[in-house]
Amino acid sequence: MVHFREELDELQRRLLEMAGLVESAIHQSVSALVERDDQLAKEVLWKEAQINQKDIEIDEFATRLLALYQPMARDMRFLTAAIKINGDLERMGDLAVNITERALSLMKEPPVKPLIDIPRMADLAEAMVRKSLDALVKRDEQLARSVLLSDDEVDQLRDAVYKELVAFMQEESTTIPRAVDLMFIAHNLERIADHATNIAEDVLFLMKGIDVRHHAEVREQAAHLKQ
Amino acid sequence: MVHFREELDELQRRLLEMAGLVESAIHQSVSALVERDDQLAKEVLWKEAQINQKDIEIDEFATRLLALYQPMARDMRFLTAAIKINGDLERMGDLAVNITERALSLMKEPPVKPLIDIPRMADLAEAMVRKSLDALVKRDEQLARSVLLSDDEVDQLRDAVYKELVAFMQEESTTIPRAVDLMFIAHNLERIADHATNIAEDVLFLMKGIDVRHHAEVREQAAHLKQ
Repeated sequence: MVHFREELDELQRRLLEMAGLVESAIHQSVSALVERDDQLAKEVLWKEAQINQKDIEIDEFATRLLALYQPMARDMRFLTAAIKINGDLERMGDLAVNITERALSLMKEPPVKPLIDIPRMADLAEAMVRKSLDALVKRDEQLARSVLLSDDEVDQLRDAVYKELVAFMQEESTTIPRAVDLMFIAHNLERIADHATNIAEDVLFLMKGIDVRHHAEVREQAAHLKQ
Repeated sequence: MVHFREELDELQRRLLEMAGLVESAIHQSVSALVERDDQLAKEVLWKEAQINQKDIEIDEFATRLLALYQPMARDMRFLTAAIKINGDLERMGDLAVNITERALSLMKEPPVKPLIDIPRMADLAEAMVRKSLDALVKRDEQLARSVLLSDDEVDQLRDAVYKELVAFMQEESTTIPRAVDLMFIAHNLERIADHATNIAEDVLFLMKGIDVRHHAEVREQAAHLKQ
């Protein structure tokens, strides 16, 4: 089974490599927006092509390991978690492209406002991706839980961005199409954070067999308290 | 292996049951919006709780089958597809709840405009969910491909909705917060259609071993033509 362990390490290594590409795509998509740099935008599109290629490869690799070995419960959980994490990372790549497309359109117009909260959302989302994968590698429960907390912070920033943009639109109707683009960029960052949260939840499930999706843990605790 | 076949049928049955709940949640979320009916909205929230429960059960069931039996390539592909399809259905439930939350907020305000394209998007999205699951059960390639075509139609409707809403906002700034809600509802319907498309792609992969994600098939055909 030494070989199988090596294969599992290799799978984890590939997930990390994919996550690195995703983090950098998120960063560049928002830098393209802030710096109005279409070269950065092109880099995101190129990275996404690589992410898609890795998505297919990791899926095939994990499925082959499932078929080839007969993994026991814990390794089985790791393999199904890897397939899910891979899917979440791939979606983040798509979302970075969505941001980039809106950035490319916004570059052609004068800026609506100085961008402060959107880059902060991006920084948080990138850190969440990094931490959720770190938590996977180190099997670090605290780190995984910290990702869940950051998600709330991202949601608050998104609400602030929406509110401010609605005010801009109401004040000056010519800003409406651009403000709508910025709203969807904030929305995409919030979704990226959601996917990082999914990964952190998978890590917690992997470590503890606790299902924290849908606040199942909270429900279980509540049921326990009632007993 | 008779028992294993029965288990696979049971897994498929559970996916269908979950898809039925999802379809109905999508329908009710948009009916709540159109009919301004908060009882329907409550039904969506209740259905989503059931969908979340089924998500966890199906995941556990599929993972148990993977661990218990040592399925060969084809059955392995079905099990990993089932896990993914389950994930897509669960996300659709979340999106129906997002629509419902915006519907509840819109009910308190006068209507911005008569709703025509949004209910059409919902009809299409529901049909896509139904067809993608039908395609799974019947292993029907044509049906699966028809889902991919509907996705383009949904995207066109969404673009029309956006364009019309921007015009409303520009004409009358008091409509802005409500128009933004409607935009996000259209966006959520488009995402539901994307998840149905993912399912149809999984069905095609399952049947043919062709990976149509990321237009891999188109790329392969192009590579073939070049030879």
